[in-house]
Amino acid sequence: MIPEATIRRLSVYLRCLRRGLRRGEELVLSTQLARRCGTSASLVRKDLSYFGGFGIKGKGYRVADLIHAIESILGINKPIALILVGVGSLGRAILRYLQEVPYFNILGAFDNDEKKWGRRVGRVEVLPAHFLRRFLEENPVDLGVIAIPPEGVEEVVDTLERGGVRGVLSFALAEFEVPRNMVLEFVDIAAELEFLYYKANKLKT
Amino acid sequence: MIPEATIRRLSVYLRCLRRGLRRGEELVLSTQLARRCGTSASLVRKDLSYFGGFGIKGKGYRVADLIHAIESILGINKPIALILVGVGSLGRAILRYLQEVPYFNILGAFDNDEKKWGRRVGRVEVLPAHFLRRFLEENPVDLGVIAIPPEGVEEVVDTLERGGVRGVLSFALAEFEVPRNMVLEFVDIAAELEFLYYKANKLKT
Repeated sequence: MIPEATIRRLSVYLRCLRRGLRRGEELVLSTQLARRCGTSASLVRKDLSYFGGFGIKGKGYRVADLIHAIESILGINKPIALILVGVGSLGRAILRYLQEVPYFNILGAFDNDEKKWGRRVGRVEVLPAHFLRRFLEENPVDLGVIAIPPEGVEEVVDTLERGGVRGVLSFALAEFEVPRNMVLEFVDIAAELEFLYYKANKLKT
Repeated sequence: MIPEATIRRLSVYLRCLRRGLRRGEELVLSTQLARRCGTSASLVRKDLSYFGGFGIKGKGYRVADLIHAIESILGINKPIALILVGVGSLGRAILRYLQEVPYFNILGAFDNDEKKWGRRVGRVEVLPAHFLRRFLEENPVDLGVIAIPPEGVEEVVDTLERGGVRGVLSFALAEFEVPRNMVLEFVDIAAELEFLYYKANKLKT
């Protein structure tokens, strides 16, 4: 069993390695990779040791091979098909950010507000939220990203689940019984900051 | 000791309560609050029970009192002073989002790129990154938000720590020895999504 923290770091290594590959890099030392990823060389070596030896002694890792290996481990040999629900200020922001990550393929964005329908955020068109169910029938979607207020999250998760989406990231914290065949994670930025503030204050006392 | 999950939910309740107060709401039932926050009434009651009885039997909670009480618990009777480092596409997005939360007071945004200096994102002006140290000497800052690539995170955290910032949220995962008098949290959205994808794939098999 690979630790969760290692899996999360693999995806960071992957981004650093791809940046290297685009610059024509063929070999990378664990110290170089560590510096670029803001981590330590020993942690890089430990994380990569879970998957067998990719290194060549004294020369480092072959960049292309390592990218390939991490992609296989994460299961992302092909782009990840994403949709986003909720094109408010945060949703728009996330949509722009995700379009810059080459292995995310954003199929569509959905919103309740008819004034937004037909508009584009980058390359992605905003569609009516009530199209979502039909859209999922016609398009296989890997992950859903939700950027709406908490009271609507459960219903959207339900629609996504019925539409075959197996992973959801919600930017509003909500609690309900998560469908069994789905992974749901929450990132509530405002709550995160208040929590940090609370912990930082405890630290002082 | 109040559980971390409760503290995180308190800040969600707070946002729901404030929306109610702005609409002139005086009393709120745990069932109403739960619906609005995407949670259950029993969880609301449990979370609030840590802080003594705010409820009036059969009538619910007094909205203004409850807001006040949660603010005291979280220590946010005054606005939280924030700065942001890294005004790329994600940083800009976060900056816009944070300006919509009334109890965050964003004092400044910093970037290395001189083309961005002097520009505004909403009400916030982008300042040169090398001003950061001086800025912190002159302005007390509660929390720092970092939206730069991982390789630069440690240095910025170091500058923030010397400048008296006690809590940092970084949008790029990085690992290093965190200064002892500081709380550091990471939210790497791309890594989060890849991790979700990995877990969702495990689910299928």
